[in-house]
Amino acid sequence: MPMVKMVDYDAAPADVKAVYDDIMLTKKTDWVNNFWKYIATSPATLKRVWSNVKEVMAPGKLDPLTKEMIYVAVSVTNNCEYCIHSHTAGAKNKGMTDEMFAELLAVVGLANETNRLANGYQIPVDEQFKPKL
Amino acid sequence: MPMVKMVDYDAAPADVKAVYDDIMLTKKTDWVNNFWKYIATSPATLKRVWSNVKEVMAPGKLDPLTKEMIYVAVSVTNNCEYCIHSHTAGAKNKGMTDEMFAELLAVVGLANETNRLANGYQIPVDEQFKPKL
Amino acid sequence: MPMVKMVDYDAAPADVKAVYDDIMLTKKTDWVNNFWKYIATSPATLKRVWSNVKEVMAPGKLDPLTKEMIYVAVSVTNNCEYCIHSHTAGAKNKGMTDEMFAELLAVVGLANETNRLANGYQIPVDEQFKPKL
Amino acid sequence: MPMVKMVDYDAAPADVKAVYDDIMLTKKTDWVNNFWKYIATSPATLKRVWSNVKEVMAPGKLDPLTKEMIYVAVSVTNNCEYCIHSHTAGAKNKGMTDEMFAELLAVVGLANETNRLANGYQIPVDEQFKPKL
Amino acid sequence: MPMVKMVDYDAAPADVKAVYDDIMLTKKTDWVNNFWKYIATSPATLKRVWSNVKEVMAPGKLDPLTKEMIYVAVSVTNNCEYCIHSHTAGAKNKGMTDEMFAELLAVVGLANETNRLANGYQIPVDEQFKPKL
Amino acid sequence: MPMVKMVDYDAAPADVKAVYDDIMLTKKTDWVNNFWKYIATSPATLKRVWSNVKEVMAPGKLDPLTKEMIYVAVSVTNNCEYCIHSHTAGAKNKGMTDEMFAELLAVVGLANETNRLANGYQIPVDEQFKPKL
Repeated sequence: MPMVKMVDYDAAPADVKAVYDDIMLTKKTDWVNNFWKYIATSPATLKRVWSNVKEVMAPGKLDPLTKEMIYVAVSVTNNCEYCIHSHTAGAKNKGMTDEMFAELLAVVGLANETNRLANGYQIPVDEQFKPKL
Repeated sequence: MPMVKMVDYDAAPADVKAVYDDIMLTKKTDWVNNFWKYIATSPATLKRVWSNVKEVMAPGKLDPLTKEMIYVAVSVTNNCEYCIHSHTAGAKNKGMTDEMFAELLAVVGLANETNRLANGYQIPVDEQFKPKL
Repeated sequence: MPMVKMVDYDAAPADVKAVYDDIMLTKKTDWVNNFWKYIATSPATLKRVWSNVKEVMAPGKLDPLTKEMIYVAVSVTNNCEYCIHSHTAGAKNKGMTDEMFAELLAVVGLANETNRLANGYQIPVDEQFKPKL
Repeated sequence: MPMVKMVDYDAAPADVKAVYDDIMLTKKTDWVNNFWKYIATSPATLKRVWSNVKEVMAPGKLDPLTKEMIYVAVSVTNNCEYCIHSHTAGAKNKGMTDEMFAELLAVVGLANETNRLANGYQIPVDEQFKPKL
Repeated sequence: MPMVKMVDYDAAPADVKAVYDDIMLTKKTDWVNNFWKYIATSPATLKRVWSNVKEVMAPGKLDPLTKEMIYVAVSVTNNCEYCIHSHTAGAKNKGMTDEMFAELLAVVGLANETNRLANGYQIPVDEQFKPKL
Repeated sequence: MPMVKMVDYDAAPADVKAVYDDIMLTKKTDWVNNFWKYIATSPATLKRVWSNVKEVMAPGKLDPLTKEMIYVAVSVTNNCEYCIHSHTAGAKNKGMTDEMFAELLAVVGLANETNRLANGYQIPVDEQFKPKL
């Protein structure tokens, strides 16, 4: 159950509305998803986090689909239900197929397994893996 | 400090040596990294985990570089030092540049932030994000 | 869905009832929240954990509100739904406003982000930060 | 071992130097800690994360010491060595005594324990704890 | 809400059916639990993960009940609701009583607490605990 | 690097010394491991945590070796280096062989993998797994 009451578009103050408009424009959608409407209870948080997401998730050296899949990988590892749903939907919009999703989860699962084997055996880092700086 | 004594190639029993050979052949390297030499203290674990890694990390619908970057994302989220080093080295071998690494970490960091905002506000999943099954 | 059947006040054995009474007295409430009624299926755990909570959460060098907010920060990081609800309610009872809750979550989110940047870059601890012991 | 080479003040490009100057001015120190010098390998990340930290950690409805202690609580839960050291140092600078640190850790430890008891018994949220929205 | 549509026995392709049959035979049950029916959307994942579970969870130097309880301990620490339910049911089938479950959770809770005290104080490993290799 | 200076036996106040004596008596050792000597900087925490460990880790419906292995499983999942070393040493003292340790880690690794597959597919709990209460 949510901890605060979400801020709907019509009831939003002007500065929140402006962020909502930018979200829809940037994502090319005509609706704003719950994440933004809940954190809008703190307009400063809304502005700050949206500006971070907009900057970090923009195309760069990594394409937007790869970024969304990395987001899903983190969300699955942390078991954040909302984030798994929203970023999987985002990745599908950007072209992730069911087969790609299955491979993504296979890697995430395996990485969580081998992370624990490395922890459990307390394996030292190979000289060859240490960056040459 | 490691919990067990690693199994060097020369001292390895034949079945372990066979896995080591397959690792070097598959990875096109002339050395075996510590992860395998430590888990080789349990030959059954070595065989099982290597066969998983070989299958999951092979090219599929996702390319090997994307898979390695997803592996790094999980390892950074779990703070597994060995895994961060080994899979970052693996990703660099497959073409990840410093700029790509910086973007990868930026996404991982941001995902960990917004995961907690979603948790903290207990945000419900939008109907639009629920898969049509 | 719960794993065990909770122990209601009326059906509780005398030693469990005594803890329930002390919980209500200490918290100045006339009801016992589910956490205690579920762990009461193991009276030894109920007694042990309540005595820990009573001691640790009592006013000390940190005031009770600060302690509750630290509890919320951990619960949000771990994504424990029950704990987020119960300790946010506890913090509100002790004076946390909506603005304070928003700031708390902003810090928790940011800390989770920068924790992963520190992990990902494997940043060494500055000499200046090492305690002088 | 760090993954990248840190950017020292003298070798930094002008935009990075400007952030370093602002960090020292804001923190009233004459040195820049490693976190910033490592993430400065990506000037965009440096600017973005510093602007977030500056905004979120500024005095608000929560005082700066409380914010630092929340940061420590998250960092201890995540076991981020760098972050534990840097934010504990930050909290001490803002007035945290050894007794306060001990109480902070006691709450963090206890919260991590009761989080798992709530998970393990799958305890449902009490009606009384659900926010009235 | 699930991310994919589960694969029922009757609608399953032959290779998936063969795994389902082996699951029921191995577990001595006449039904297949959801975990397998959902991951069966990727037959390769189904085959790989089932073969891992079958091998790892078979009786060995640790008995099957101990293995199930270790599985529960990990699932509670990670707060994986499905896994807590399925492996607790599995442990009960293998003889875990309510008292044993209560003791298991008490250990899991305590371990999560002392893990954070060890992290928070950054306690160095005793020489006596370092394996003689 | 530790955050506080540990309290050696000879320099300890009487109440701390009494706990140290009880630790050595209970564990049948002639030395106190670092965990206790660091948390002894807060005598109240020392007393409280030791009394918890003594009660929870005592023989009950689960034998002490099983309890130690559960402790290791949690510590490996959380990647707490100190705890992995101390509780693996404890389990070895109570009879855990190298083969048992290898099986323990295999289960822990696998559980962390399947936890993420359950998360990623958002698999609903089977009716059959829900406790009959």
